[in-house]
Amino acid sequence: MKALLMGLQDSICAGLEQLDGEGRFAEESWVRPEGGGGRSRVMREGAVFEQGGVNFSEVQGENLPPSILNQRPEAAGHHWYAVGTSMVLHPRNPYIPTVHLNYRYFEAGPVWWFGGGADLTPYYPFLSDAQHFHRTLKGACDSVDPAYYPVFKPWCDEYFFLKHRGETRGVGGIFYDYQSPGGAIYKGPNADGAAAIAGSAQVPERSWENLHDLASACGHGFLPSYQPIVERRQNQSYGERERQFQLYRRGRYVEFNLVFDRGTIFGLQTNGRTESILMSLPPLVRWEYGYTPEPGSREALLTDLFTRPQDWLTDGSLEQHCAPHGAID
Amino acid sequence: MKALLMGLQDSICAGLEQLDGEGRFAEESWVRPEGGGGRSRVMREGAVFEQGGVNFSEVQGENLPPSILNQRPEAAGHHWYAVGTSMVLHPRNPYIPTVHLNYRYFEAGPVWWFGGGADLTPYYPFLSDAQHFHRTLKGACDSVDPAYYPVFKPWCDEYFFLKHRGETRGVGGIFYDYQSPGGAIYKGPNADGAAAIAGSAQVPERSWENLHDLASACGHGFLPSYQPIVERRQNQSYGERERQFQLYRRGRYVEFNLVFDRGTIFGLQTNGRTESILMSLPPLVRWEYGYTPEPGSREALLTDLFTRPQDWLTDGSLEQHCAPHGAID
Repeated sequence: MKALLMGLQDSICAGLEQLDGEGRFAEESWVRPEGGGGRSRVMREGAVFEQGGVNFSEVQGENLPPSILNQRPEAAGHHWYAVGTSMVLHPRNPYIPTVHLNYRYFEAGPVWWFGGGADLTPYYPFLSDAQHFHRTLKGACDSVDPAYYPVFKPWCDEYFFLKHRGETRGVGGIFYDYQSPGGAIYKGPNADGAAAIAGSAQVPERSWENLHDLASACGHGFLPSYQPIVERRQNQSYGERERQFQLYRRGRYVEFNLVFDRGTIFGLQTNGRTESILMSLPPLVRWEYGYTPEPGSREALLTDLFTRPQDWLTDGSLEQHCAPHGAID
Repeated sequence: MKALLMGLQDSICAGLEQLDGEGRFAEESWVRPEGGGGRSRVMREGAVFEQGGVNFSEVQGENLPPSILNQRPEAAGHHWYAVGTSMVLHPRNPYIPTVHLNYRYFEAGPVWWFGGGADLTPYYPFLSDAQHFHRTLKGACDSVDPAYYPVFKPWCDEYFFLKHRGETRGVGGIFYDYQSPGGAIYKGPNADGAAAIAGSAQVPERSWENLHDLASACGHGFLPSYQPIVERRQNQSYGERERQFQLYRRGRYVEFNLVFDRGTIFGLQTNGRTESILMSLPPLVRWEYGYTPEPGSREALLTDLFTRPQDWLTDGSLEQHCAPHGAID
């Protein structure tokens, strides 16, 4: 897994540099006093990416925080080891979505588990982009086991949910956690989650190799899932209105990451490297009290349709909502 | 307490409008479905205040969240009532500090308690401003009981502490919570708090009337504590460097409020009015990976001295550090 995840960091960074054309990743290696370390790579002020970070970290310690032990009580009292690659990209052009990816692996005494996923957060609504992203991730999942996507897609909608806003973070993607043989599997949305999607199929028992292959397929599926979206949007011109809406919506990204995100909280709880953990935060953000988008606008379509769980690949009615806004190209 | 807190909202808003000269507060009244409501007042794009919010709320419900029941187990199973006024001001000029105030009162079955405080978050270091703010608050506390300030000052340093940054939110002020006869009192900093200040004196047993008078004295002490600072700084000219540092430091404000602030978490946990709760967030913010201020600069002085607990009113050595930077005027 370590080799896979370091390789992913390398190939993703190389692909993103090529896509950006101008920006380059600067690398910092770091050591964690309690054990382990990592390498953080940041691109700032690129042509496409206003800021992007791709982290690799390998950390270990003696006591997992309670938030994890609640899910894996067998890990209590055992030395733990975790390895992960995570990425957040904040493009400059408001028509290009922000994207996040994370694949990780834990061992603690008698137990091990995999987690990960990728999700897309558009600022302006384009049905075709949401469909492309989901289609590519579904293909990656299906190549390992067709039972995965139907479980991990609604799990993503539920996980990346801002309860206090009643909104998903974006159009989702896939998310999974605590994946191991006989381990916890997703049993459908919680009462307080994205309850619009009913209980999901369960994933069959799976092996270490199978879960490793899943991370590999999805990780290598990232560039194909995102690059075409960037290429389609990067020369689309925008104005101050679109920029201001992007900065406003970035506030939701901050709210999710600081209030709800399990990875951020784990990092801050385990004395992680703050700068690397908070690399996910956008370079410039604004909040505006009581903002509501103009009815019938693209901003309203984004808020009403693209921050709710949708069956992007199968729901034919989405096109009708998007067509009047030029949001299906 | 309700009358006191509504009156405070009125007098503070009137004072701030006069101070700003141009900006006016817009009011929205709201009702909370589970019980209660409030009135939110926001000033945007004033001459002095880029954004400022002063909230009054009166809410009630059936079950307090676990974070409060941990501190007040006697409240479990009882109907609760809470009333509070809170304020955050984000000035435009980076030489004017951000300021926060909150006074609140809870009842739940057999128990009641008071909480509150005010703290100052400068972007540029001015020793005289920190001293004036503390001196005024100390005077307000002392007018009720001289035992208060020596306890509430270090408590503020500990509470407004960003553990993951190893920084206080600013130069502090006063903070107290769960104040009632025989109730919890501050026993000195936690091991993981602002441990630079050793255990503090305890406050003697106090009555409802005494704690009411404390909120009144400190609440009415706010304008005298802050207005002279605004008047001294508002015409001090600044450039892009100062603006950028202000936007960067505002990121710390967001990090504190979303990760640590008890009021924010209580509000979000009890289905509070999101827009009113997050009114505290700055209008424009930036994050920058790996930023460190230039050694010897005013930005470094702010970071090194003004985000650490200091005895602003008694430590004569502070002047030596501040003088070379013009930070004692």
